[in-house]
Amino acid sequence: MKEFGVGLLGFGTVGAGVIEGLQKNGELMARRLGVRPVLRKVADIDLERDRGVKVDRALLTQDAEAAIKDPDVDIVVELIGGTTIARKFMLQALKLGKPVVTANKALLAEYGEEIHRTAKEHGAEVYYEASVGGGIPIVKALREGLCANHIESMYGILNGTCNYILTRMEREHLPFDEVLREAQKAGYAEAEPSLDIDGIDTAHKAVVLASLAYGFTIPMSAVHIEGIRGLSAADIAYAGELGYRIKLLAIVKQSSGQVEVRIHPTLVPLSHMLASVSGVFNAVMVKGDVVGDTLYYGRGAGRAATSSAVLSDIADVALNLAAGSKQRLPSFVGNGVQGLIRPIDEIGARYYLRLSLLDKPGILAKVAHILGDHQISIASVMQKEARLGEYVPVIIVTHGSNEGNFRGALKEIDAMDVVGAETVRLRIEDFT
Amino acid sequence: MKEFGVGLLGFGTVGAGVIEGLQKNGELMARRLGVRPVLRKVADIDLERDRGVKVDRALLTQDAEAAIKDPDVDIVVELIGGTTIARKFMLQALKLGKPVVTANKALLAEYGEEIHRTAKEHGAEVYYEASVGGGIPIVKALREGLCANHIESMYGILNGTCNYILTRMEREHLPFDEVLREAQKAGYAEAEPSLDIDGIDTAHKAVVLASLAYGFTIPMSAVHIEGIRGLSAADIAYAGELGYRIKLLAIVKQSSGQVEVRIHPTLVPLSHMLASVSGVFNAVMVKGDVVGDTLYYGRGAGRAATSSAVLSDIADVALNLAAGSKQRLPSFVGNGVQGLIRPIDEIGARYYLRLSLLDKPGILAKVAHILGDHQISIASVMQKEARLGEYVPVIIVTHGSNEGNFRGALKEIDAMDVVGAETVRLRIEDFT
Repeated sequence: MKEFGVGLLGFGTVGAGVIEGLQKNGELMARRLGVRPVLRKVADIDLERDRGVKVDRALLTQDAEAAIKDPDVDIVVELIGGTTIARKFMLQALKLGKPVVTANKALLAEYGEEIHRTAKEHGAEVYYEASVGGGIPIVKALREGLCANHIESMYGILNGTCNYILTRMEREHLPFDEVLREAQKAGYAEAEPSLDIDGIDTAHKAVVLASLAYGFTIPMSAVHIEGIRGLSAADIAYAGELGYRIKLLAIVKQSSGQVEVRIHPTLVPLSHMLASVSGVFNAVMVKGDVVGDTLYYGRGAGRAATSSAVLSDIADVALNLAAGSKQRLPSFVGNGVQGLIRPIDEIGARYYLRLSLLDKPGILAKVAHILGDHQISIASVMQKEARLGEYVPVIIVTHGSNEGNFRGALKEIDAMDVVGAETVRLRIEDFT
Repeated sequence: MKEFGVGLLGFGTVGAGVIEGLQKNGELMARRLGVRPVLRKVADIDLERDRGVKVDRALLTQDAEAAIKDPDVDIVVELIGGTTIARKFMLQALKLGKPVVTANKALLAEYGEEIHRTAKEHGAEVYYEASVGGGIPIVKALREGLCANHIESMYGILNGTCNYILTRMEREHLPFDEVLREAQKAGYAEAEPSLDIDGIDTAHKAVVLASLAYGFTIPMSAVHIEGIRGLSAADIAYAGELGYRIKLLAIVKQSSGQVEVRIHPTLVPLSHMLASVSGVFNAVMVKGDVVGDTLYYGRGAGRAATSSAVLSDIADVALNLAAGSKQRLPSFVGNGVQGLIRPIDEIGARYYLRLSLLDKPGILAKVAHILGDHQISIASVMQKEARLGEYVPVIIVTHGSNEGNFRGALKEIDAMDVVGAETVRLRIEDFT
């Protein structure tokens, strides 16, 4: 049986998981594939820390470049993370014509164009199943399983930390800060949580998926990003009363040759499958013009789940090497929407608004008037009882209008002296 | 760009969908793949019926064998269905070393061993994404995406007709017969519905998935099959009160080197993702030993969805042909559970029992006594109020025990003269 040497860059959580997976199921993989991936090098600065997995010390090295160049290393697996040395090493490997497997969504989102171009020029290839959705084979589904489809839309719960926080806030009626603190203690959130809770990680993953679906590199700067920081438990509860659950959703839609990519907390109808995705799980709903709606669900992070995805990429690369068919599948091809990003102000949505209004006659009429002036019509209003002369929360659900209209209306509303606090606005997704 | 000729056998619903898909998105596929699949032959007995799609008459033929042998046909797509002439034609194609794409679960379930052996012997290959779950890329996920995993279990809603009937029965509180009649009128159920509602189609698909996961051909005779015929709206309602929804589930589990495959109406907890799969949609939950739980969801049938799967197989085969790597991936390899099927009597489950008992003192105690004698302990009892001396429904939910024990206990219970009708028994799945 043909053997292919794997050089692992980065002996962290996922790296240790990949080694463990190879030790546990490497024989099964070899039987299934007819080729055998063999661990040949493991490069990391820290060679001493115990990762809970046994590795032959002869394989360990601090010299990543030597590992990349090693003629026994046929497949380079980049699990360093970040966009500095990971980028350098990945480009080195690709320039040697070596296939690279990576879990690095930040690098793909920020430098995808350079990476895919370099791979193409040097007859190499990049596989990145583990970069989105942890163990869910979503990249393969999109790239191969749905290759006969124009992708009309994708809706993703792509960050396990955010979904865990939202799930606990809802179930235990806890405020954001408290759940975040506990999540940090339990290891579900980083000490510096911004990448997750501010939606940046979700945006990286959405960019990877959207770029793949539409065949051009979508710049991060074109993505509208709002995270879950400061989301109020009250809004989660009110949304529940209205029949919705709040999820941090990555929304990718294509229409009239333009693509929109946005990340924000979103009211999802309780009956929708995505509303059932709880805790650290991820899911992506993909709508193709032929297949219709499909959905993919699984653990979005973690050592084992992510390593399952890395190993499936190693399998694909090994099969390609064995067949002499590197670049079997072109990594990026245009899809008729080349480079056109829809500006956020043109994006249409329905809105959940929570206003803090002084309970005085005529105020609600004034608000309704302002909304009407900006072409926004009201679908329903929910006002909680309160004593006259106090600020009360008034929930307004609107029909669809565009972002620009909402921005204008809310500016006027929040300038009224009967408004007690800035209006909370959240988008509703009806998945139509 | 390299072109590969497609010969379509069977110009029915899915066949027309494949042609339509190629016409609509063939150019997109060619750009994405770097190779171009081209329709070269369409064979069917009936060349006159309008299928709502335009085909060059020069491609149409009644001679399937000639189409298979045609040197311009590189890829044979079998969409005839059934296990007679479809088998003959498929074997002919494979013996010529031509790759075959098929949607035929019955053929794979009944003659899988012969088909895969013939393919292997003649350097051909068989792709069958469309045979299970319509447009869901579940075969690819299992075969490639999860190739680093031992598959611990699979739970599938695999028949759209059954799921449509169950969804309508629950939502509209309608009896089985009435919903079936309406489904037949609406084209969601066949005039002869047995293949669907008696669970046979689900069993075919479960056998395809299980055989792939475990690398040996699981005989249909080893599958325990119960369909949804005669399922009572009352049980759907009682299950709802208890927090469950009834689904026709294909259950595949592996433990201690044995595989169990069974199809039966199953109580699924309402909070479980599979409980949210409604109407004609399908879903499969797959648990791998590395990745954990994953789930795949989409349209389980229909012209367009199924053709998306057929086209993705055509893409894979064309890429393999272009790379000169036929049999890129071995189709079947053992997985340590070679040929061992768990007998149904050894299978453990929790049960929902609906007894029809005369409302007299001491009867329930007698029932509890019989259950205890057979090592079955009771988790909960729900008895609806009724007048003394009448038969009342008593719902008993049990803890886990094995099938053999239940069979013995129910035989004794149903023989009691205070029992008004045969006890209804349905299995509960806790997904542990």
